[in-house]
Amino acid sequence: MRVLVIGGDGYCGWATALHLSNRGYEVGILDSLVRRHWDMQLGADTLTPIAPIQQRIQRWQDLTGKKIDLFIGDINNYEFLIDALRRFQPDSLVHFGEQRSAPFSMIDREHAVLTQVNNVVGTLNLLYAMKDEFPDCHLVKLGTMGEYGTPNIDIEEGYITIEHNGRKDTLPYPKQPGSFYHASKVHDSTNIHLACRIWGLRVTDLNQGVVYGVLTEETGMDEMLINRLDYDGVFGTALNRFCIQAAIGHPLTVYGSGGQTRAFLDIRDTVRCMELAIANPAQAGEFRVFNQFTEMFNVGDLAIMVKKAGNALGLNVEINNIDNPRVENEQHYFNAKNTNLLELGLQPHLLSDSLLDSLLNFAVKYQNRVDKNHILPKVSWRR
Amino acid sequence: MRVLVIGGDGYCGWATALHLSNRGYEVGILDSLVRRHWDMQLGADTLTPIAPIQQRIQRWQDLTGKKIDLFIGDINNYEFLIDALRRFQPDSLVHFGEQRSAPFSMIDREHAVLTQVNNVVGTLNLLYAMKDEFPDCHLVKLGTMGEYGTPNIDIEEGYITIEHNGRKDTLPYPKQPGSFYHASKVHDSTNIHLACRIWGLRVTDLNQGVVYGVLTEETGMDEMLINRLDYDGVFGTALNRFCIQAAIGHPLTVYGSGGQTRAFLDIRDTVRCMELAIANPAQAGEFRVFNQFTEMFNVGDLAIMVKKAGNALGLNVEINNIDNPRVENEQHYFNAKNTNLLELGLQPHLLSDSLLDSLLNFAVKYQNRVDKNHILPKVSWRR
Repeated sequence: MRVLVIGGDGYCGWATALHLSNRGYEVGILDSLVRRHWDMQLGADTLTPIAPIQQRIQRWQDLTGKKIDLFIGDINNYEFLIDALRRFQPDSLVHFGEQRSAPFSMIDREHAVLTQVNNVVGTLNLLYAMKDEFPDCHLVKLGTMGEYGTPNIDIEEGYITIEHNGRKDTLPYPKQPGSFYHASKVHDSTNIHLACRIWGLRVTDLNQGVVYGVLTEETGMDEMLINRLDYDGVFGTALNRFCIQAAIGHPLTVYGSGGQTRAFLDIRDTVRCMELAIANPAQAGEFRVFNQFTEMFNVGDLAIMVKKAGNALGLNVEINNIDNPRVENEQHYFNAKNTNLLELGLQPHLLSDSLLDSLLNFAVKYQNRVDKNHILPKVSWRR
Repeated sequence: MRVLVIGGDGYCGWATALHLSNRGYEVGILDSLVRRHWDMQLGADTLTPIAPIQQRIQRWQDLTGKKIDLFIGDINNYEFLIDALRRFQPDSLVHFGEQRSAPFSMIDREHAVLTQVNNVVGTLNLLYAMKDEFPDCHLVKLGTMGEYGTPNIDIEEGYITIEHNGRKDTLPYPKQPGSFYHASKVHDSTNIHLACRIWGLRVTDLNQGVVYGVLTEETGMDEMLINRLDYDGVFGTALNRFCIQAAIGHPLTVYGSGGQTRAFLDIRDTVRCMELAIANPAQAGEFRVFNQFTEMFNVGDLAIMVKKAGNALGLNVEINNIDNPRVENEQHYFNAKNTNLLELGLQPHLLSDSLLDSLLNFAVKYQNRVDKNHILPKVSWRR
């Protein structure tokens, strides 16, 4: 089975590409490397020293004998995209190739427009390429749990059955995204659902929670295979960010009261979820939605867990409730379903002291790479 | 009160601009004229001979003494947009300035991308301009009833209260658009709702049905004020299209079985709805949604009504159920609410024999302008 991982140079993409290669899939990586470019523009960098994609892939081949094809270019360029697909002939497409930071999308109008055009047009191009030349290919698309927002009812997986005035229908679950980035994923879902209905495409949308951790079986094999780990205010996500802050003696930056509850998962489960989705493809015409997370935490509780784990390692950890740069509910109901992936066989790695130890030790090891100017959030939703 | 009508050279926009001017509003028109450009590219033309926008406005001023400011340019160009807003200083913005044809968006990948980027970025630009410099301005945005699709439950106005597992919330009504054009309007709704929540903007979204008719009190004053009337397979909409087909002796083109039910309204009600929305603005932070239509018909019944009216005028009218170029349900439940505008005082012009007579006579008058090559639909959803 041939799988093309779009965005395969990124945090989830790189780990997924290696995992699938290790499991015997024929893997290609397609990436424009624009994320590395944005890092340079922002003056930010991953905590971990990631090698150039060409060297990463070469080392993987040297270590395992497994070859990964590389296509450098942008899926917003349709000529490039269709040419790469013709050369690779994928059975499955994994699509991580989007701008994935909420704060990045909220920097200003230009970044909001960039995010939405980049994400929506890239996905539209994929859908047209599938319709025209790869109608049986299975698209596994990364969505986000942030599409749902924080409704006061249980969050189902993509759809909800509604009884209303004596009638009943199962309809797309209502979406309340909290940033122009999250909104771009809602737009994608709307477009993909339409393409499945009118063209019979087969697509799985993985509404992923916040990913934490850095090591997978494959990326831990060699330092040149190391994955990126973001700690800055734009690309760093909760938990990873907290561990790095704890390692360098910076107070943990909890936004507002910290009562925001979110869905989380270990990156080792991300790669396993991708594999499960690929191995069990959607039917023709089916727009299948899985909520991809294993546990729910509120941000304040996460900070306390990191503080305790840090203290056990002899680190002095403080927690700072800073002004919330986002506009979001800080006290709300949140209960999301995640049974689809469990039913396919996912065995979750739940958040544990040992994982926090490992992450904290990782952060301590690379603490000299941290630029403290990039820790506090600089992007305000209200500005 | 100063109202800027974006897309004021179009079918709904022109009628609205004149109506508001006649009612004493200070009106500006902002338009890129790209719709006239697309007509040229498609080789299509309005049935009615519309004058250049500059001449239309001059004639209006000569007839009534009322001046309409004109801004020629594209809201996708932010510099142009913000400059026009600074010069005009609007109290209300009416936004008709989008690509509005479903078949146009389904021509090919390029037209799908053009439609979504044009519509989404234009509206994003408006939202940012409002946030930065016109936070109290009221945006009246044209949506479409086609955002909802054809759910098997009653269609509410923008939101629905859902009881689920013993809890309750009022959430955005689930959307199932049937083309990439309709999807672009869903994207707009998602973005606007977000902007209202985070920035406190005031917006009214008018989910309009299919508009029919050509004369309003103002556009009927003089032939140089005449409104456009589209009959081609790309921009022509049901009813207007049927009347023109009847007038020239072409069989009425009913797509498929004709059991598709849609919401309709007279263009005289469109202009009145715009006035009602402007005169009763949304609150700060409110994303208010009105369903803007007066009656529901299925397409087959509409064709029969036109046939009867045509026969009464001595026209020989046939009905052809042609292969449906779209992918849509041809038998479905459809029951949409439209109480919000009625409560604000809308007094509907219901579809009547006299309106059909007038439309048919209009079509007969200009029948020599019809190019029969453009009558049948050429754009297939499945292609």
